Amino acid sequence: MTFEQMWADIAPVGRSASTQGYFRQPYTAAEMEMRAWFSEECTRRGLELEADGNGNLVAWWGSGDDAVLTGSHLDSVLDGGAYDGPLGVASSLAAVDVLRDRGFTPRRPIAIGVFADEEGSRFGIGCLGSQLATGLVSVEDARLMRDRDGLLLEDVMANAGLEPALGRSAWLDRVGCYVELHVEQGRNLVDLEAPVGVASGIWPHGRWRFDFDGEANHAGATRMEDRRDPMLTFAQTALVASTEARRTGQRATFGRIEATPNGTNAVPSRVAAWLDARCESEAMLSDLVASLEKAAAERAGIDGTTVAVTAESLSTAVDFDADLAARIAAPGGWPVIPTQAGHDAGILSTAGIPTAMLFVRNPTGISHSPDEQAGMADCVAGVDALADTLQELTR
Amino acid sequence: MTFEQMWADIAPVGRSASTQGYFRQPYTAAEMEMRAWFSEECTRRGLELEADGNGNLVAWWGSGDDAVLTGSHLDSVLDGGAYDGPLGVASSLAAVDVLRDRGFTPRRPIAIGVFADEEGSRFGIGCLGSQLATGLVSVEDARLMRDRDGLLLEDVMANAGLEPALGRSAWLDRVGCYVELHVEQGRNLVDLEAPVGVASGIWPHGRWRFDFDGEANHAGATRMEDRRDPMLTFAQTALVASTEARRTGQRATFGRIEATPNGTNAVPSRVAAWLDARCESEAMLSDLVASLEKAAAERAGIDGTTVAVTAESLSTAVDFDADLAARIAAPGGWPVIPTQAGHDAGILSTAGIPTAMLFVRNPTGISHSPDEQAGMADCVAGVDALADTLQELTR
Repeated sequence: MTFEQMWADIAPVGRSASTQGYFRQPYTAAEMEMRAWFSEECTRRGLELEADGNGNLVAWWGSGDDAVLTGSHLDSVLDGGAYDGPLGVASSLAAVDVLRDRGFTPRRPIAIGVFADEEGSRFGIGCLGSQLATGLVSVEDARLMRDRDGLLLEDVMANAGLEPALGRSAWLDRVGCYVELHVEQGRNLVDLEAPVGVASGIWPHGRWRFDFDGEANHAGATRMEDRRDPMLTFAQTALVASTEARRTGQRATFGRIEATPNGTNAVPSRVAAWLDARCESEAMLSDLVASLEKAAAERAGIDGTTVAVTAESLSTAVDFDADLAARIAAPGGWPVIPTQAGHDAGILSTAGIPTAMLFVRNPTGISHSPDEQAGMADCVAGVDALADTLQELTR
Repeated sequence: MTFEQMWADIAPVGRSASTQGYFRQPYTAAEMEMRAWFSEECTRRGLELEADGNGNLVAWWGSGDDAVLTGSHLDSVLDGGAYDGPLGVASSLAAVDVLRDRGFTPRRPIAIGVFADEEGSRFGIGCLGSQLATGLVSVEDARLMRDRDGLLLEDVMANAGLEPALGRSAWLDRVGCYVELHVEQGRNLVDLEAPVGVASGIWPHGRWRFDFDGEANHAGATRMEDRRDPMLTFAQTALVASTEARRTGQRATFGRIEATPNGTNAVPSRVAAWLDARCESEAMLSDLVASLEKAAAERAGIDGTTVAVTAESLSTAVDFDADLAARIAAPGGWPVIPTQAGHDAGILSTAGIPTAMLFVRNPTGISHSPDEQAGMADCVAGVDALADTLQELTR
């Protein structure tokens, strides 16, 4: 079972016929099929598979503590790419095969983790599985989480046939360090002409819900000057967010919006929109969000609307273990690059686990889209780099 | 069965407990319950009820041709008010009671129509029932119409227990003129301190779908300058629409929006938004839409996106029968006022039926919202005005 064969096996799972993008939201049929595939691959390799009560899976090669954990996630954003998540899981399985082909026996256990709901596409908070495993999200908070249909997290898990038991995961005590391989979600490796790179850290980032409230009214009979239209307040805020982020070299995106009642012939009573913002430093991030709140409030004054901002999640800056990164990068001469994307690796690092990331070149630089790409030769180079890393750390 | 009793009977049907607004979309359980209520009220009065194949209902008092048709609609926008539509239907029933209490026998038949899908909240085009009845919308076009869930019009009707047979309605040949009573959707009657008014005409208006296309991408890892974000193109277009309509005394609204994939951490690949525009003249309307298309295209050039505009419906200017309006307004001294809202009365007028409208004062001036209002005394004045009108036209 080569990497290429594994990749062909999972290619159809959850793929949209119209967009070729992937819909592998947590605990849906497509994502459960991905889990079943992972389970079969572990069985095939004699890896001992463990499911915790947070939806995460961990497969063990060897017993004992101080394990080197690798892996990634199998869920996708709505209409996402093929590589974001599954590339790290399939590469981990393939790296185990490479090590065994080399006749190598690790002195420390090697484990492959599949983290639940990394993308946050269902319950609104990213890396939910690893955040529950490490205790960064509390059980009390998680019990109240609902998806867009109003279903509670634990009910969704139980409906999918899992046995939810939220809270810190026991397997965490057996982990000495974590190495996650991931497709790059930007153009650094393209510019550097390198198939593989090593991450230096993750920008601080978060999600804020902006609730713009106005007054529903007839779209024809109401004079423009009599309206309190929250769509206008949103529109101005979205433009300011883009301009401000571009000016300062940061990131700000309004990619999700829900208008109420969302009728063509009604001025909306409410527009809810979600800001995704990421900055080089935590100070810059809080400054950016504060400036957008201020701009939104100013425009609300003009429109006769109101705006309320709720922080839904906030991930602090992550500096990966510099020694570990250097040790991984040195043999292959891989470049060390930053990322703006959140990962379970960031969560485990924040929880005190020495952590590193390997990136595989993405020729389009595009991610969270059907256009996400990685060449097969680069994927195989990633598998070899991960195998080298696991061998180095467990020799 | 007084008007007030009828009003109390239908008040709970389709009302949201959280907003107190109404959800009576065509062929839903709530709207079917409204139809059943109308059928019972007709039976109680010995009116002969006829259902055409377009979803419309017509109840007859008297036989023969050259009837005076009154009535309105029972469906609502999403989260709409209580009065928009049902006020005209309940007032028509009450007006029949008033005439009978007066001992009056009409020399021409009086009919009460309930038109299907006036609001266009389900299939995207307003006044669908009257447009099919008059042939202004073709059967071929209607057969292709789908709701937001992708269901075809005829399937939706059949699922609701109706027998769809789309096309021009036979009852139309029996109608000599049409008088629709409706809650006012603006502040004219408040300003004029009149409980009732008569319509002079309807502004030309229409709906245009703007498809803004860009490129899905990761909201964190993609540099602002590498994006093609259609949300920004939409935002700028929505602001220009409002500014332009306000400057020229017209109406332009973007109340409905759908982002794809609508995920917090993804730059959208597409934003679809619907423009509702209404102007004093058809020339001004086409100028306004053209200027917004131009503004959208200019901004798309900056954002690296594209925009495609599709006209979904267009209602030409309606000038109601001036003699009829004068004849109705004179006895009560009611003011004659214009409206920007579309009505089945506009469709029947366009189809060549002499048509008039009575408006009842709305103290908030708000419509298409739970805040829509009409005082009970004004509603009763509306019933009396409608009864006087029907008596005058059938004496």
